[in-house]
Amino acid sequence: MTVSPFDHPLLSGLVGDEEAARLFSLQADIEAMLRFERALAEAEAECGVIAQDSGLAIVAALGSFEPDTAMLRAGVARDGVVVPELVRQIRATVGTRHGEFVHFGATSQDVVDTSLVLRLRQAVDHLGLLLDENVVRLTRLEQAFGHRALMAMTRMQPAIEVTVADRIAAWRLPLERHRLRLGEFSGRLLVVQFGGAAGTLEKLGGKAGTVRAALAARLGLGDAPQWHSQRDALAEFAGWLSLVTGSLGKFGQDVALMAQAGTDILMSGGGGSSAMPHKQNPVKAETLVALARFNAVQLSGMHQALVHEQERSGAAWMLEWLVLPQMVVATAAALRIAAELAAQVEGLGR
Amino acid sequence: MTVSPFDHPLLSGLVGDEEAARLFSLQADIEAMLRFERALAEAEAECGVIAQDSGLAIVAALGSFEPDTAMLRAGVARDGVVVPELVRQIRATVGTRHGEFVHFGATSQDVVDTSLVLRLRQAVDHLGLLLDENVVRLTRLEQAFGHRALMAMTRMQPAIEVTVADRIAAWRLPLERHRLRLGEFSGRLLVVQFGGAAGTLEKLGGKAGTVRAALAARLGLGDAPQWHSQRDALAEFAGWLSLVTGSLGKFGQDVALMAQAGTDILMSGGGGSSAMPHKQNPVKAETLVALARFNAVQLSGMHQALVHEQERSGAAWMLEWLVLPQMVVATAAALRIAAELAAQVEGLGR
Amino acid sequence: MTVSPFDHPLLSGLVGDEEAARLFSLQADIEAMLRFERALAEAEAECGVIAQDSGLAIVAALGSFEPDTAMLRAGVARDGVVVPELVRQIRATVGTRHGEFVHFGATSQDVVDTSLVLRLRQAVDHLGLLLDENVVRLTRLEQAFGHRALMAMTRMQPAIEVTVADRIAAWRLPLERHRLRLGEFSGRLLVVQFGGAAGTLEKLGGKAGTVRAALAARLGLGDAPQWHSQRDALAEFAGWLSLVTGSLGKFGQDVALMAQAGTDILMSGGGGSSAMPHKQNPVKAETLVALARFNAVQLSGMHQALVHEQERSGAAWMLEWLVLPQMVVATAAALRIAAELAAQVEGLGR
Amino acid sequence: MTVSPFDHPLLSGLVGDEEAARLFSLQADIEAMLRFERALAEAEAECGVIAQDSGLAIVAALGSFEPDTAMLRAGVARDGVVVPELVRQIRATVGTRHGEFVHFGATSQDVVDTSLVLRLRQAVDHLGLLLDENVVRLTRLEQAFGHRALMAMTRMQPAIEVTVADRIAAWRLPLERHRLRLGEFSGRLLVVQFGGAAGTLEKLGGKAGTVRAALAARLGLGDAPQWHSQRDALAEFAGWLSLVTGSLGKFGQDVALMAQAGTDILMSGGGGSSAMPHKQNPVKAETLVALARFNAVQLSGMHQALVHEQERSGAAWMLEWLVLPQMVVATAAALRIAAELAAQVEGLGR
Repeated sequence: MTVSPFDHPLLSGLVGDEEAARLFSLQADIEAMLRFERALAEAEAECGVIAQDSGLAIVAALGSFEPDTAMLRAGVARDGVVVPELVRQIRATVGTRHGEFVHFGATSQDVVDTSLVLRLRQAVDHLGLLLDENVVRLTRLEQAFGHRALMAMTRMQPAIEVTVADRIAAWRLPLERHRLRLGEFSGRLLVVQFGGAAGTLEKLGGKAGTVRAALAARLGLGDAPQWHSQRDALAEFAGWLSLVTGSLGKFGQDVALMAQAGTDILMSGGGGSSAMPHKQNPVKAETLVALARFNAVQLSGMHQALVHEQERSGAAWMLEWLVLPQMVVATAAALRIAAELAAQVEGLGR
Repeated sequence: MTVSPFDHPLLSGLVGDEEAARLFSLQADIEAMLRFERALAEAEAECGVIAQDSGLAIVAALGSFEPDTAMLRAGVARDGVVVPELVRQIRATVGTRHGEFVHFGATSQDVVDTSLVLRLRQAVDHLGLLLDENVVRLTRLEQAFGHRALMAMTRMQPAIEVTVADRIAAWRLPLERHRLRLGEFSGRLLVVQFGGAAGTLEKLGGKAGTVRAALAARLGLGDAPQWHSQRDALAEFAGWLSLVTGSLGKFGQDVALMAQAGTDILMSGGGGSSAMPHKQNPVKAETLVALARFNAVQLSGMHQALVHEQERSGAAWMLEWLVLPQMVVATAAALRIAAELAAQVEGLGR
Repeated sequence: MTVSPFDHPLLSGLVGDEEAARLFSLQADIEAMLRFERALAEAEAECGVIAQDSGLAIVAALGSFEPDTAMLRAGVARDGVVVPELVRQIRATVGTRHGEFVHFGATSQDVVDTSLVLRLRQAVDHLGLLLDENVVRLTRLEQAFGHRALMAMTRMQPAIEVTVADRIAAWRLPLERHRLRLGEFSGRLLVVQFGGAAGTLEKLGGKAGTVRAALAARLGLGDAPQWHSQRDALAEFAGWLSLVTGSLGKFGQDVALMAQAGTDILMSGGGGSSAMPHKQNPVKAETLVALARFNAVQLSGMHQALVHEQERSGAAWMLEWLVLPQMVVATAAALRIAAELAAQVEGLGR
Repeated sequence: MTVSPFDHPLLSGLVGDEEAARLFSLQADIEAMLRFERALAEAEAECGVIAQDSGLAIVAALGSFEPDTAMLRAGVARDGVVVPELVRQIRATVGTRHGEFVHFGATSQDVVDTSLVLRLRQAVDHLGLLLDENVVRLTRLEQAFGHRALMAMTRMQPAIEVTVADRIAAWRLPLERHRLRLGEFSGRLLVVQFGGAAGTLEKLGGKAGTVRAALAARLGLGDAPQWHSQRDALAEFAGWLSLVTGSLGKFGQDVALMAQAGTDILMSGGGGSSAMPHKQNPVKAETLVALARFNAVQLSGMHQALVHEQERSGAAWMLEWLVLPQMVVATAAALRIAAELAAQVEGLGR
């Protein structure tokens, strides 16, 4: 089934990004969830919350654990979340003596949200590298063609002559600011989620803070109080994603308009038409515009999900699941495509 | 890769609908596109636009045609649309003598848009049946519990006593209106798209209208002038989808609030928690709210795509691809879940 | 205070429409609310729910009633809705003997929603006329220039030659469909809202239906069961508004692109620049695009408001107030501007 | 005319904020635009771009300048922007000898965008203070009631007991993060816009940088390269506004749900009903939810406006005007209302 073009066997070659999409595969999610359960068992054993041999037994069992995917699917349909069934399966693997200490003190949301953050850390790294690559390619375009003349267009009318460098700056400077922003928000985003049933880690008593810090350290995430019902870091991240695609959408729109005018840009590798073999369609440029508008739409959903009632909202949480992964992949795809588009430019200006 | 929960092997059991999702599989899309090419060849042979033996050769070749999917994927990445490469493959299968008459007079958008409409016809049928099923189930609830008392809640405060039937009417009546709306818009939506390179069917000369009518008839669609750059019927359909999920979101929100209050509703089969075995979470009710908000967000994207410049906009068109299939599946899922939720109600009111 | 350009003393000349905006003035709202209270008293007296002399006294008092606006403002801030304080003032005017029969059996939402519908009826008429005017002007353009040649542009690249008539048809046909749609939805939209405290008209007993029908007749609205918490007709109307502005946005985008290319369109009366006196900016065309995107955004809010919990949601209701009036005015403005823009066209094609 | 509730004489008492709304009045806009022209004349005289006596004549004339508002309105309708007509009026006031040096080297967008930023600086200060006030009030609630017990609710079902302090932390911590974010983005937002016709300050030659720095210093803004077509700082700010209202919407939703349950919160001063005098509606709590959803919708528009084609997009720019001021006022209103709501809480928990 391939409802989303990001998952579609053909369309994902156009609008997708394999590396980003892989982060949202079932396998990557389960690996990250098992990583959480393993690190939790280790941290709790280390802090004396569970026995050392329980910790060892859990880690050992997780090393070879293979989930029953069909039963996980039934579990999600029933419970709205995969964790109860996943934990049941892990406990069965660990066995009766130590099994009850699997997932000790944790709740479903701890597992699901921390799994997400673990994968967003990889996404943030990936997006940062792609952003750098785009800055490099635009800088090269500027070095090659920056001195040439270009008719500035304001309100879709010829204004005065500027240089190609002036226009490229309007493509590159926002990307450089997005790089700075990434440094600002990532400390808030890439933190562990660990709160237990209702956020108070009530089963861990006085050791709650120590266990959480140890868990965060083992996962390579920042330590922070539980944020079950405080989703601002995710909405902020989504806003950043849409800022990135918005800036790239402007680049795409400009390239498409230059290609339409016909004289300001020389490109290789446009798309063909089934009716008109002579055409060179600016497919990558158009795709950047589509992805920008897509993310601008989705962002609204991530902000609707901020109205996250009480200690945990199933509805607001699910809304995030429906929106955020696609925004990440759309952004990675846009960065990939923009870099390719920059590389296709063989001439700018006069 | 499973970026969208609608495609996810686990989450699609919760928020998806298999029958609707199948309509957007690669296989369903290719089948519908081949159906277009076959019907076009037949219609053009029938009207004397191409030779009878060309028509027969094309139909015969299509009967056993198997696309090379890897090359289709590369074609999409290059051309932004699958049709140029698909037509190339079909022509190669048909062979040199008749191959050039494959796709005669048509353009990529004719194939892609008509393929979409062919599958939306199935979607509309499916959604209509699900809508009826929901009306039936709500009617049953009304028959069983309608006479009981319920404290009406206005602005989240107790108001006065009403009957259970009063509240059920607020769930059912909008669904009945959505049924009427379906009858109104479907005549505009379920029409063939056939315009050729720029909408004028210039290669068909005086036979353009006859061929288009014959094509529509063979596909079981309405005949209408090309609508390449007029996307109002699709945006209208998207609006209807979001009306449906919005009404079901209200049903879900009401059920969740009744379940929270604890005395107004008796349910079977809530979802379990990994931390609190005693809980019965109203997972289906929450899912209805999430899907309603999701579609309300997506709808904005379908309306942004109305600004479809000139004779064909790649950017606006791709935006539709990113949004509409998910809206259809979200709506089918919401209808399926609402019917299940209604069936779980074992008591309403006092 | 002029937070919205639609209310701004300068900007409303650009993006506003006086006739539509007037429908949402305080005066128009109060007049419509008083009209509701008068018609209600008349209907209830006619049906014997209140005494004839009470009815006469209320109607007489309303004839000269002048609200204390400062106290209404304080009432809204306190109650979230103007009606409790407005009814208090009306009752004081009517006096002790008959005052208690003002607003008998009604609730705030009856007054506010019916006042809205009364004004939407005028809006629908106004928008319908503007739509007709646009069809006429586009038809004139077609008569004048339809036979000329135009280079069709697909995916922002030259495709093949078509006629000017082909492009104008893509502007006009959606407007004709919007006219048909208006006929379909207006019967659902233009109905009275009358339900009392929780929708059951419990104070009217067996006469509820008769009074509601009489009330509707006096107001010139359709009769329908209360729809306190069923907002689908309003969301459907909002969708129609955004369909209209979306189609006009395409017209605007096309004109701006033609003006940019420079040879396909000859216009009078573009906007001037403070830096470049030579420029003729396609201000009206750009405004159409801005209004289309604005309404496409707002529509999402009207659909979020469908999740209208229980018998009345203050939150969802207020969200409508924040969104719908601006959508109506944006649509009227876009229709006005599009008609003006069509009149500025002095040449199309070659 | 009062299309937007933020401008409505009655509704602005509910959903508005006078101090924030005043920043978007015609008077505030014109004052800020005149301040730009004055500072520009001073900076250009200081740097020797225009003669000292021209600078003095312009400053003197601006001291008593009164615009002809009717002509400004006509100018906006014609030019799409007020500046050409405003500059014409100023030049007429200054007189023939020095008048031509008014607005020297600047363009409309410099004036309009810098005027906006000058007022956003005040908005940022105002919002920052309101944010602090909310943190203080929530801290007081925590001190008063934090130790009491509260039944945590997860997925709208009772979970386990927590303390009132646990829930208040989920309201307060996001606000503290929003305060930090304000410090991060304001350096990017509060900068001068000065680029001339197409962003290159071509009329100022080698003195461009010096004049821009002097202009920024006189206006109390940061100095930065022109950002005509780079709108990321505005979209980022809009995202922050929606983060704030989203967090407050969660607070409002929680309060409304507590008030519905009836035992967890004791409030003073709810809203009255026209049908049920016994009710105390949680109007302020509902308003917070409505404003959160409103801003989450609008944010999408600000991100659509990132696709700002070429050197200046009239369409994308106008879209910002239609959206951003309302978002600012909605946020100020939400902060004001949340602080009032916190003050109405007379008891939390058990």
